Amino acid sequence: MVNDYNLTMLTDFYEITMANGYFQSDIRDMEACFDVFFRRVPDGGGFAIMAGLEQIIKYLKGLKFTDADAEYLRSKNCFSEEFIQYLLDFEFKCDVWSVPEGYPIFPYEPVMIVKGPIIQAQYIETFILMQFNHQSLIATKSSRIVRAAQGRPVMEFGTRRAQGAEAAVFGARASYIAGCVGTACTIADRNYGIPALGTMAHSWVQSFDTEYEAFKTYTELYPDNATLLIDTYNVLKSGLPNAIKVFKELKPAKMGIRIDSGDITYLTRECRKILDAEGLQDCKIVISNSLDEYIIRDVILEGAKIDSFGVGERLITAKSEPVFGGVYKLSGVEKNGELVPKMKISENVEKITNPGFKKVVRFYAKETGKAMADVIMLNDEQMPDGKPYEIFDPNAVWKRKVLENYEAKDLLVQVFDKGKCVYECPNIQDIRKTCAEQLETLWGEVLRFENPQTYYVDLSKPLWNLKHDLLNRYGAEHK
Amino acid sequence: MVNDYNLTMLTDFYEITMANGYFQSDIRDMEACFDVFFRRVPDGGGFAIMAGLEQIIKYLKGLKFTDADAEYLRSKNCFSEEFIQYLLDFEFKCDVWSVPEGYPIFPYEPVMIVKGPIIQAQYIETFILMQFNHQSLIATKSSRIVRAAQGRPVMEFGTRRAQGAEAAVFGARASYIAGCVGTACTIADRNYGIPALGTMAHSWVQSFDTEYEAFKTYTELYPDNATLLIDTYNVLKSGLPNAIKVFKELKPAKMGIRIDSGDITYLTRECRKILDAEGLQDCKIVISNSLDEYIIRDVILEGAKIDSFGVGERLITAKSEPVFGGVYKLSGVEKNGELVPKMKISENVEKITNPGFKKVVRFYAKETGKAMADVIMLNDEQMPDGKPYEIFDPNAVWKRKVLENYEAKDLLVQVFDKGKCVYECPNIQDIRKTCAEQLETLWGEVLRFENPQTYYVDLSKPLWNLKHDLLNRYGAEHK
Repeated sequence: MVNDYNLTMLTDFYEITMANGYFQSDIRDMEACFDVFFRRVPDGGGFAIMAGLEQIIKYLKGLKFTDADAEYLRSKNCFSEEFIQYLLDFEFKCDVWSVPEGYPIFPYEPVMIVKGPIIQAQYIETFILMQFNHQSLIATKSSRIVRAAQGRPVMEFGTRRAQGAEAAVFGARASYIAGCVGTACTIADRNYGIPALGTMAHSWVQSFDTEYEAFKTYTELYPDNATLLIDTYNVLKSGLPNAIKVFKELKPAKMGIRIDSGDITYLTRECRKILDAEGLQDCKIVISNSLDEYIIRDVILEGAKIDSFGVGERLITAKSEPVFGGVYKLSGVEKNGELVPKMKISENVEKITNPGFKKVVRFYAKETGKAMADVIMLNDEQMPDGKPYEIFDPNAVWKRKVLENYEAKDLLVQVFDKGKCVYECPNIQDIRKTCAEQLETLWGEVLRFENPQTYYVDLSKPLWNLKHDLLNRYGAEHK
Repeated sequence: MVNDYNLTMLTDFYEITMANGYFQSDIRDMEACFDVFFRRVPDGGGFAIMAGLEQIIKYLKGLKFTDADAEYLRSKNCFSEEFIQYLLDFEFKCDVWSVPEGYPIFPYEPVMIVKGPIIQAQYIETFILMQFNHQSLIATKSSRIVRAAQGRPVMEFGTRRAQGAEAAVFGARASYIAGCVGTACTIADRNYGIPALGTMAHSWVQSFDTEYEAFKTYTELYPDNATLLIDTYNVLKSGLPNAIKVFKELKPAKMGIRIDSGDITYLTRECRKILDAEGLQDCKIVISNSLDEYIIRDVILEGAKIDSFGVGERLITAKSEPVFGGVYKLSGVEKNGELVPKMKISENVEKITNPGFKKVVRFYAKETGKAMADVIMLNDEQMPDGKPYEIFDPNAVWKRKVLENYEAKDLLVQVFDKGKCVYECPNIQDIRKTCAEQLETLWGEVLRFENPQTYYVDLSKPLWNLKHDLLNRYGAEHK
């Protein structure tokens, strides 16, 4: 497996400096609570898709410091030997909650919560963020591309432009969760069961004396499914006629042509016309070449005749916005057995965090199954039980709304209990299914590519009160 | 090590389909020659920086198909058993040449050449491109950021926003090659000797009852080098006064403040003034928060007082342009012991490739040491020996220039000889030094961020003639 090696030390150096600091200070054994959340959806979209949990769980289960790690840390001359011994004896003790993979997630709500000894809860920040940020980014981008294709299969073809091996493999995984039908990346199939797909390269065509010979050899070898790349020389003058000749001679069970350059709309319409006139209505047309959701939407609108899309670099790097800004913020520390809520104050109002140990409740309308709102609550608040529940805009509290006839769902599920994994990751097919089902719960207004309706993510009254008490207290202290 | 696992199957599925196809066709044993090159420099820059070779070599040395791979391939029901046996007995036999890491590279010139049995030379395309594209992208972006900082240290702080573990580690490696002084990523230090650096997080400050206590505890623990994060509450009203108090009380050997939000120019100028007035001229000011080459250039121009920069997400993902478009194109196949040059014809003139087995010669001016031009030649052409050498623009052949008083360097060095590695990778420090030295050979006009002068990359007369003969022949056949 790509991450079947020890990544314990894949952490920011300051996590270790701070861990050593906590270890040597009075608050060594203090419990702390951290939230993972993000502030904006990439590409101006209405939601993101949760992904990466399986790899985070694997990392947390596998946390182990080796003698070589200890040697390395000693060489830095700034860590105490007792601390290094603590790491060598490391036993993970945290509680972890997470939104399951495949669910739509929204800005500002905790999508993961970590609670445990501050040294540990702090240490795991870097890996959790890295994995969550990467896979959620690619799942979110892929979902846009898949939706643009309006039911036509989208294949992930980006391995060669991925930012490293994990970007290729877990990018393929995330794109599959979000609805791609498969990947070019073979190891992602071998290790994660994401169907690997592919056709041929231009070099195949060039390796033979003629294009016809290249097509014929390929179709003889793969009569079950021959998709021929027809743009090595000239699509209409050479590639298509040679493909048609071979299809008629060899009659493969499934057949297709792929076009990787030129004007997609013009070429696919011409090809479709000629194929149909030749009685090859079953021949599929596959398109690739720097596609994204906007190009796909536009060529479909223009009447291009396309059966499926191969999408590479713009998907696997989320090119239009390659950073997902998940953060990991302290929400409380335990003092004398009680959680003292903490928040980051900032000049920038959007950067003020929500204090305390929390949960997230999603309200689904019973009648339609549609998601109506998420409410962030303090963890000890009761789950809404079906009675009318009033929500309000946390930034404009006079805007109120009463939810009725709903099903309330606790979004965060427990994943680790005092360091023990208590969650079984669903298989990738089930995650993919969950994702499709959960997207069905979103209104079209939220799914929109540009200027989507902002989905309600509100604070419960007790949480809002707590936050504003803390803000007022801070304001009084810093006049 | 991050890539000390078997990535043999990290390849596009079509490489295997084609390999199986070649294996079962008449051209099974044919030798082929492929070039790696790219068509444009990201961000409109004047050059890119070669990186990733060490990891490519490791991959090629470690190519090995396991029984589990064979099982997987059998399950696909489209590969012949003899082919699978061939993979199980796989022995790498190719010749490989490459530009060494750290060198500036330019559009259209081969930066790697692979020559060998077509099955093998084709198979390794995906991994080579992925690794080259990723690391060269990050090295190129990092070089821009480092140059913008005009000698001030730049630290790579992007692990948590990297696209997977390899993006973090090899991104840190590439950024170090290009001149960053270190990384936040601990495992990159442990495994690759890239100095790990770091300060503290907001959560450290919040974990203590007061900011003063947090700063004091940290400085007591790290008296050799205490950099305090001063923007958790309020930079000028709280963070800076508390830091100054602690610095005066504890007198750490080195001290610094880090600011991660707010107006950089205003805050750093104010902080510098106050620090200096307090006699803390030695206190360094570190800045982070979504920086890139443009912001760094602007705040320096505005007179911000900054000693070093921590750069995260925009470096580690090359956010402004996260795709490097390296391609792998067939340049020839061997027939009856002779190399038949091949080229990809395209409607799009820029997509036409250069045929034949080639080399790249860089001409340095003897007097200044500056690079004057690169010339792509056929491999069997003689190295220019100091006599006047006429170059010409391949797209405007009347533009000519005679190079004199030069040193000619064969840019591509042999890395594999019939599958045996014949190249020893320099250590990372030496690569970094090479990179700095080679950037010195570029004129300021080429180094410019925007609208740089286009560096000459020309074709030798024999190569130009070969290319145009093939084009004319193709034109005559496809009138």
